[in-house]
Amino acid sequence: MSPEQGKILSLINSPTDLKKFSEKDLPQLCDEIRKFIIEIISSNPGHLGASLGAVEIAVALHYVFNTPYDKLIWDVGHQAYAHKILTGRKDTFYTNRTLGGISGFPKMSESEYDAFGVGHASTSISAALGMSVASKLSEDNSRQHIAVIGDASISGGMAFEAINNAGVYNTNLLVILNDNGIAIDKNVGAVKEYLTDIVTSRVYNKFKDKVWKLMGGGSKYGENHRAIVRQIGNAVKSSILKKSNFFEAFKLRYFGPVDGHDVVRLAKLLNDIKKIPGPKLLHVITKKGKGFKHAEKDQTRFHSPGAFNKETGEIIEKTDTDKTPLNYQDVFGNTLVELAEKNNKIVGITPAMPTGSSMNIMMEKMPERAFDVGIAEEHAVTYAAGLAAQGFIPFCNIYSTFMQRAYDQIIHDVALQNLHVVMCLDRSGLVGEDGPTHHGSFDMAYLRSIPNIIISAPMNEIELRSLMFTAQSKNYGPFVIRYPRGKSLNHDWKKPMQELKPGIGRVIREGEDIAVITIGTVGNYVIEISDKLKEEGIDIAHYDMRYLKPADEDILHSVFKKFSKIITVEDGTITGGLGSTVLEFMSDNNYTAKVKRLGIPDAFIEHGKIIELHEQCGYSPEKIYEEIKKI
Amino acid sequence: MSPEQGKILSLINSPTDLKKFSEKDLPQLCDEIRKFIIEIISSNPGHLGASLGAVEIAVALHYVFNTPYDKLIWDVGHQAYAHKILTGRKDTFYTNRTLGGISGFPKMSESEYDAFGVGHASTSISAALGMSVASKLSEDNSRQHIAVIGDASISGGMAFEAINNAGVYNTNLLVILNDNGIAIDKNVGAVKEYLTDIVTSRVYNKFKDKVWKLMGGGSKYGENHRAIVRQIGNAVKSSILKKSNFFEAFKLRYFGPVDGHDVVRLAKLLNDIKKIPGPKLLHVITKKGKGFKHAEKDQTRFHSPGAFNKETGEIIEKTDTDKTPLNYQDVFGNTLVELAEKNNKIVGITPAMPTGSSMNIMMEKMPERAFDVGIAEEHAVTYAAGLAAQGFIPFCNIYSTFMQRAYDQIIHDVALQNLHVVMCLDRSGLVGEDGPTHHGSFDMAYLRSIPNIIISAPMNEIELRSLMFTAQSKNYGPFVIRYPRGKSLNHDWKKPMQELKPGIGRVIREGEDIAVITIGTVGNYVIEISDKLKEEGIDIAHYDMRYLKPADEDILHSVFKKFSKIITVEDGTITGGLGSTVLEFMSDNNYTAKVKRLGIPDAFIEHGKIIELHEQCGYSPEKIYEEIKKI
Repeated sequence: MSPEQGKILSLINSPTDLKKFSEKDLPQLCDEIRKFIIEIISSNPGHLGASLGAVEIAVALHYVFNTPYDKLIWDVGHQAYAHKILTGRKDTFYTNRTLGGISGFPKMSESEYDAFGVGHASTSISAALGMSVASKLSEDNSRQHIAVIGDASISGGMAFEAINNAGVYNTNLLVILNDNGIAIDKNVGAVKEYLTDIVTSRVYNKFKDKVWKLMGGGSKYGENHRAIVRQIGNAVKSSILKKSNFFEAFKLRYFGPVDGHDVVRLAKLLNDIKKIPGPKLLHVITKKGKGFKHAEKDQTRFHSPGAFNKETGEIIEKTDTDKTPLNYQDVFGNTLVELAEKNNKIVGITPAMPTGSSMNIMMEKMPERAFDVGIAEEHAVTYAAGLAAQGFIPFCNIYSTFMQRAYDQIIHDVALQNLHVVMCLDRSGLVGEDGPTHHGSFDMAYLRSIPNIIISAPMNEIELRSLMFTAQSKNYGPFVIRYPRGKSLNHDWKKPMQELKPGIGRVIREGEDIAVITIGTVGNYVIEISDKLKEEGIDIAHYDMRYLKPADEDILHSVFKKFSKIITVEDGTITGGLGSTVLEFMSDNNYTAKVKRLGIPDAFIEHGKIIELHEQCGYSPEKIYEEIKKI
Repeated sequence: MSPEQGKILSLINSPTDLKKFSEKDLPQLCDEIRKFIIEIISSNPGHLGASLGAVEIAVALHYVFNTPYDKLIWDVGHQAYAHKILTGRKDTFYTNRTLGGISGFPKMSESEYDAFGVGHASTSISAALGMSVASKLSEDNSRQHIAVIGDASISGGMAFEAINNAGVYNTNLLVILNDNGIAIDKNVGAVKEYLTDIVTSRVYNKFKDKVWKLMGGGSKYGENHRAIVRQIGNAVKSSILKKSNFFEAFKLRYFGPVDGHDVVRLAKLLNDIKKIPGPKLLHVITKKGKGFKHAEKDQTRFHSPGAFNKETGEIIEKTDTDKTPLNYQDVFGNTLVELAEKNNKIVGITPAMPTGSSMNIMMEKMPERAFDVGIAEEHAVTYAAGLAAQGFIPFCNIYSTFMQRAYDQIIHDVALQNLHVVMCLDRSGLVGEDGPTHHGSFDMAYLRSIPNIIISAPMNEIELRSLMFTAQSKNYGPFVIRYPRGKSLNHDWKKPMQELKPGIGRVIREGEDIAVITIGTVGNYVIEISDKLKEEGIDIAHYDMRYLKPADEDILHSVFKKFSKIITVEDGTITGGLGSTVLEFMSDNNYTAKVKRLGIPDAFIEHGKIIELHEQCGYSPEKIYEEIKKI
């Protein structure tokens, strides 16, 4: 299953093997790794662009540093394929992101070379700083601690907190700023503009050669390296970055910018820098998608392109395109524009996920009213609250797993003040191949305990539209709409929207034997199996709650009055979710019944196809069917 | 109840009244406000130091700006007493922080002058930016949006996210950086050192006079103000802040630093600055506790001193000092040192709350092993995870309400990787006078759905010690200990510690009629009333769960086997907390019983004394007693 490997790559199974080669072999190795990645990712989809851009960084780091003794942390981690290939996972790389295969992200339990698990942005400097302080406390002064972080991730608040802290500890921390000017979409914000300024400024260009000579010239400085580096530092500070250097102001010694695709120069430079004690930052300029021209050209599309033709770059769409239902994301994006055209108070907010969430549709059509605020979930929610306080209706679209970052802001800035912010939780429930760092398992449980909040989940795209319509139709205070990743159900989605009153669910099927209560799209699984069960003599009633909070008390009363056997199904953790809501209602109203809760168990769920994971967790159609039969 | 007011203050009931006075009256007004604050806070405790430091800022802002049309947001908000006094709450200020009285923080529902509710740090720029964009969209270009933020709060990640975003929108945003060099404890981190650099640099001093003349000289620039200001800007940039200006790099026009206690100059300057469109920052130097010499001298102690003698500055301790039990905080701080002396892997981490959490005890005794990482909860937790990944055992102490900020980091960096981080949630449950922004209501509900995590709560300080001992005794993975604010129970707390095995609770009282299941210190309320109930013929059994997760299944089995009436009591939200855990257990194990859940209802709870709030929520000793009698 693993493709043919290049001459050098075929000899490398660990960084130790890599170190046997001479510097001049490194460019060829990088080419071979690129080919290997493209070969595999073209048929087994994964994160292409970022990993192609970081091949030289990975090779140079493992060539120069003593991993795994030296600690290497890849922020976000979807750029770390070359790292995985170099550290013993070359032959399993074809299993990337598949059930039972290797993870698409660095993961401590997978390899000792993965110093820290990653997935969400902006964590690497905190973790690396913690490790560097651990080494200092252990009086191990030779160990290096490296965080590789992108220009978008470094603008996340958490990374800033870490930089603010790092500047005051004198530890062996090296931050590699992998600056490609793009997140998944184009990077935004003042930090990005600032970095562009550094790279493009005329002053910089004027002095570039001098710096190259001093820094990358290949001479070993020997005993004098500190003095020389200080000289470089001063030159950089006083001449090139006269205007201001953010990182130097924060007491990180700044080096760069350097070409991140010149692997030989990069290796030399790292070799020099590693001898300098204390916190430091190397600014490396790379190109996302480097070496695959289609990916270089359309960086957003080739961030995670799905299967593609490795010769032509053509992205292979699933068959029968025109009849394939839209993603929920597309329905969201189009509906938002439709609503915003009628209601001029609506604004859109996304923290760096315009394409993923389809907020880009509104950003194109109404650029004044749709905002990409950068990787900044905390800010996104409170910024939305500020807009809401002035009478606007923000649709703040954040992936369920990333909304964990803004939990305090939901409570403290939105719910406590009962502000009318519509929070659209994209990719809620299990998300599939991205795995445990990205599953949206917890949102119903973590939101449900917050007062004032309305929590809804549509069963299909028509309902998604209607919930969006409802959320903006009057001031309901905080209004959450959670919906999953991926394809919706129907073809003809653009139906008129209708008000779906909060706290009102619906009866999908009347029945006599067992009541099944669902929320969200897993309700469709129950529809799938209802007839078959009926034929087999089990007559189920099916209720779609639609609103987790406020829960439809009329439905719940009628269920508990009629049934002694109840099953709840949810695409979320059963600890504290829909099932618990039903149990609390039962207890508060003095009912008794046998309630079986189906959903995500109290465990972290690995990666795999969504349906495989639902099967594993016991709420695929077959598993629900079996459970009902059992009862 | 309201004290006598000074000559000018007595005439001011709103900013409109204030504007009738001439600039030269402002210094006297500031004096009168200070006296008024000291008079009231000396007998009715509140946040003294920060508010004394911000009197001139508040007076100048309301004098110059058109509040409430112009939006004024006070970050954190405990510095806003002068603002409250100037905006219609002078005569109710004596009710500050008491049940039914005014809030200690700005609060939208309390006054139209409170543009946005605050309490947690670093939210103000996001909210003000949202409002400024709302004005821009409404084509209201004259409205001003002001965020007053301290030098510690501005180093929080969320504030940085907002600054990164603010620099790219061209809105009327004015950030007042209130730089007093101190949070509650001394401010830490690179930002702080950077600001000190600006203020103290020789270059700055050399050019100070010139800038004063240009900026604060009192001349009205009229039509030319833009040109002049640009000139100032250039002068500042090129001469004074040659080394680097962080804020200018982020496209906020920087002004300052200026003396924040020279109210006349401040007013003149604000008057000039407000005419300049676009995002800007005024750096104001203030002294925490200004005007009350005792508070200036011991800024940490006078942050929120309790009652004090307004003449001598003596802080009035509660009577019978030597017999008063210690705070849980002191027990934590002393026990941590005791444990760390024996276990050299233990380290301590606090995000800017060394004194409040008593981490300062360890910071003094073992400065190498105890870290104040600044207002940075997200970073604190992942930094702890980095240390844990290298075999250290971090005790990361964060107030329950602030831990909401690090929710994603607990899930993604600690629990998913099953790292041995001990998370001590200080001030969990209702915290009293600080009110809804600060109550630790949600932690049990939001933590319980996270896999791998152990959640415990001691009933008293002896148990707190033993839980801390247990948490470090072996690698249990993520280990939470939640405990309340304030006084513990016993005098003789320094008892030997013992291992309290996770998942094991205890029987406090055997009984026949009703089972009462509690967690944490509210268990003592049940002890208080047990005998009385017995005398009245109600024989209750009382179980202390000690661990919410894993819950003691033996106890729960025996309870459900024996009792048909069960009451759960918790100092946390009943939506998803202990009571729900008990219901889930009941359902999963096919028991039936009547379960009554006592705890915080599904609503935000206002401020007041803790016992008043417990009464209100229905779980004071009397209310529990009544509930039991009812059943």
